[in-house]
Amino acid sequence: MAKSIASRAENYSQWYVDIIKKARLAEHSAVRGSMVIRPYGFAIWENMRDQLDRMFKETGHMNAYFPLFIPKSFLSREADHVEGFAKECAVVTHYRLMNNPDGDGIIVDPEAKLEEELIVRPTSETIIWNSYRDWITSYRDLPILINQWANVVRWEMRTRLFLRTAEFLWQEGHTAHATKQEAIGEAEKMHEVYATFAEEYMAMPVLRGTKTDSEKFAGALETYTIEALMQDGKALQAGTSHFLGQNFAKAFDVKFANEENEQEYVWATSWGVSTRLMGALIMTHSDDDGLIIPPKIAPIQVVIVPIPKPNDQVDEVAHQIMDDLKSKNITVEYDNDPKSRVGFKFAEHELRGVPVRIGIGKRDLEKNQVEIARRDTKEKSFVSLNGVSDYIENLLSDIQDNLFSRALEFRKEHTTEVDTMEEFESVIESKGGFIYAHWDGSPETEEEIKKRTKATIRCIPLNAVEEEGTDMISGKPSKRRVVFAKAY
Amino acid sequence: MAKSIASRAENYSQWYVDIIKKARLAEHSAVRGSMVIRPYGFAIWENMRDQLDRMFKETGHMNAYFPLFIPKSFLSREADHVEGFAKECAVVTHYRLMNNPDGDGIIVDPEAKLEEELIVRPTSETIIWNSYRDWITSYRDLPILINQWANVVRWEMRTRLFLRTAEFLWQEGHTAHATKQEAIGEAEKMHEVYATFAEEYMAMPVLRGTKTDSEKFAGALETYTIEALMQDGKALQAGTSHFLGQNFAKAFDVKFANEENEQEYVWATSWGVSTRLMGALIMTHSDDDGLIIPPKIAPIQVVIVPIPKPNDQVDEVAHQIMDDLKSKNITVEYDNDPKSRVGFKFAEHELRGVPVRIGIGKRDLEKNQVEIARRDTKEKSFVSLNGVSDYIENLLSDIQDNLFSRALEFRKEHTTEVDTMEEFESVIESKGGFIYAHWDGSPETEEEIKKRTKATIRCIPLNAVEEEGTDMISGKPSKRRVVFAKAY
Repeated sequence: MAKSIASRAENYSQWYVDIIKKARLAEHSAVRGSMVIRPYGFAIWENMRDQLDRMFKETGHMNAYFPLFIPKSFLSREADHVEGFAKECAVVTHYRLMNNPDGDGIIVDPEAKLEEELIVRPTSETIIWNSYRDWITSYRDLPILINQWANVVRWEMRTRLFLRTAEFLWQEGHTAHATKQEAIGEAEKMHEVYATFAEEYMAMPVLRGTKTDSEKFAGALETYTIEALMQDGKALQAGTSHFLGQNFAKAFDVKFANEENEQEYVWATSWGVSTRLMGALIMTHSDDDGLIIPPKIAPIQVVIVPIPKPNDQVDEVAHQIMDDLKSKNITVEYDNDPKSRVGFKFAEHELRGVPVRIGIGKRDLEKNQVEIARRDTKEKSFVSLNGVSDYIENLLSDIQDNLFSRALEFRKEHTTEVDTMEEFESVIESKGGFIYAHWDGSPETEEEIKKRTKATIRCIPLNAVEEEGTDMISGKPSKRRVVFAKAY
Repeated sequence: MAKSIASRAENYSQWYVDIIKKARLAEHSAVRGSMVIRPYGFAIWENMRDQLDRMFKETGHMNAYFPLFIPKSFLSREADHVEGFAKECAVVTHYRLMNNPDGDGIIVDPEAKLEEELIVRPTSETIIWNSYRDWITSYRDLPILINQWANVVRWEMRTRLFLRTAEFLWQEGHTAHATKQEAIGEAEKMHEVYATFAEEYMAMPVLRGTKTDSEKFAGALETYTIEALMQDGKALQAGTSHFLGQNFAKAFDVKFANEENEQEYVWATSWGVSTRLMGALIMTHSDDDGLIIPPKIAPIQVVIVPIPKPNDQVDEVAHQIMDDLKSKNITVEYDNDPKSRVGFKFAEHELRGVPVRIGIGKRDLEKNQVEIARRDTKEKSFVSLNGVSDYIENLLSDIQDNLFSRALEFRKEHTTEVDTMEEFESVIESKGGFIYAHWDGSPETEEEIKKRTKATIRCIPLNAVEEEGTDMISGKPSKRRVVFAKAY
């Protein structure tokens, strides 16, 4: 079967689009910038979402739901916040349609104009802190640890499936605390939850760090980020957690009586990951034959294919294996459609990234064995029938580990320390990746480097070693290296 | 503690509002008609959602996600559909804000006007069938069995928490089939899934039936409904499943090649339930002391309260019980806050509708027993320590059954057969409830009865017995009784 996927080496962007299309993950919709997430893509997202949701609940958070619409005036209350979002807001101005009195079709009813325009939420700090004002009066009401799974809209002009879309799905945590220290602790904790999720479930190694002032969330005092490296050497911001200080409490007048009965403003955090993670997942692991999904988030972990076609004996063996796997909570599908050829099925399951394929052939059965192929390395083994489910349980774990190691190895190969702009530009142009370089801390040199190379500071690493150095542009002293990269 | 909940007998509407407020289920937001679903309310909704989701998946459906925005022109394509929704649409006309050049604050940027206005989805048939056109070419692509969990907006002028809000959460199933018969079968199957969910999980008996033409979904050929009866004698439409015929396939030109390679239009269904179910839940079971939640969907099934205050021995017993209950997948909370008084705690857990409360007192422990109180009947029992978890497992099942029986009994008492308008009006005014009466099938008498009594035809029961009769208004012959009620 001609899969017609572009190769990564030739055209990485086209390869990305082809994978999404051929594996039926998502597609553009009739609405500019909005995508349709198709069932198989959504099943992967569901697995990621459910795991994150468990981790949020284990760390004491509860879900809630706040309105889609935000009164225009709310956005203006926090100066940086409105500055950050005003240019990409979808605005609801009317609430009714009517038949066109001058012709066919329907038009917006001019009589049904809203007194105040409503913004489709680009993020929910403002509407949520407006509620928190009524919920919080005393330190006894704190902390508030809430998360919301929702759709948000940011009117992006250049969109790419999963990576940048006008509407996307995400979760946004919004917490309220009595002390600065506790709020910072929360922002750091959720940053670590994201890093753990990325590494242990998505098998995607991430750098942990903070953002520079120019890359921070609009309204945050500190933004913690996890940064992943894609196969084309570009970075991808995979999740952020913000310490918001008292900015939103002041904007919405949210105070509490402390234990001494004095009024104080409440401390805030917010943190989010989105369907962008789907893009990160695809570009971390997949190859020219299609998607590769880590077993822990694969909708189907094992597929069984009869070779050449099913019969009673094959069916019986398949069902026995399925029962054994299900009892180990391994998800398995039996592809016994007699209309498709085996070669087509193999290609299809590779394309969809099913981690393990079991082939049941007539001659194998005579030897009391089946053929087991892993998607990540394409290695095949013959495994005795009575050991299949144990073998697969271990194999899934191996695949999960191997995907992480492989991505980590790739990152190591694409991480470079440089000390001059010449080296910097040469690395950016040749292999890309993460570049550790000294920076004097000024927005001017940050901007200058971006202008020259399109690379930005991805993060100031959390665990950076102290090291004397000089800024590549200004020559001013620097105490530690920061991480640069071109980014999605 | 003064709970300040109005009594149902005195003021049912106020009681409903009070329950929602005091149990912290939801509240009005700053955006007209939009509510905030608070964490405890959302936890109940999550349980309902997760169970429905399991039932959808067990019946072969997968989730997907389609855009929030619908191009205005899409709505017009199906005549009945646009007629039904045009009057309550939130319309996005612009995509950017700007600083007000003439003063403070931000205004809508007049330059950023959309070429075609976008409608915030009131329901997604149109945008989904526009995608299905690309997905379906042959009978091999059918059926498509997709569900979506989403927020939708219908600009309601009079809103009530959960029951009628401008924005609400729901699921909408949208399926595509090769034959009329298969589509009708799907609509009927999902109707039965809803009925099963309502009765087995929400403990809420429902009538199964079809809607009259005037009460059908805008664009449907047949609407199947489940109708529940609230404690004030009013009906509540709790879920609908629609056979859409080929209406949307024709509107969006969705055809398939059948096995004879002839082009045919695709057959459709859609089906949905919403956060409205939360209103139904509250009004089916709760009492003047607060919420009552059926154990199968209660976020916390058991609460343990130390009496009068916790000590090491009480803690040890509590933790033993918690371990035992958790091993049976029973959710349990230990309310050992030393700052609250026992009476306050008891009232609070009643208010929140926790199905079972365990009190651990010093004297009880001397007798090696605890006190177990059920929320539904308020009966208390003393149970020996070593039998607690088995006792509670049975008790939760009893409570679930009792809530259903009680609601069914109430419905029986509030179901009346009448043959004349005099009787009809007298029943409507005195006790309300479901009224079975003959109807000649004309929209005129349906409208006349509505005008006179505010009662509408809730459904034509699926299992109606054939019976000769005459319409109460026209005197024309009728073959079966239909169900009338005033409704939410």
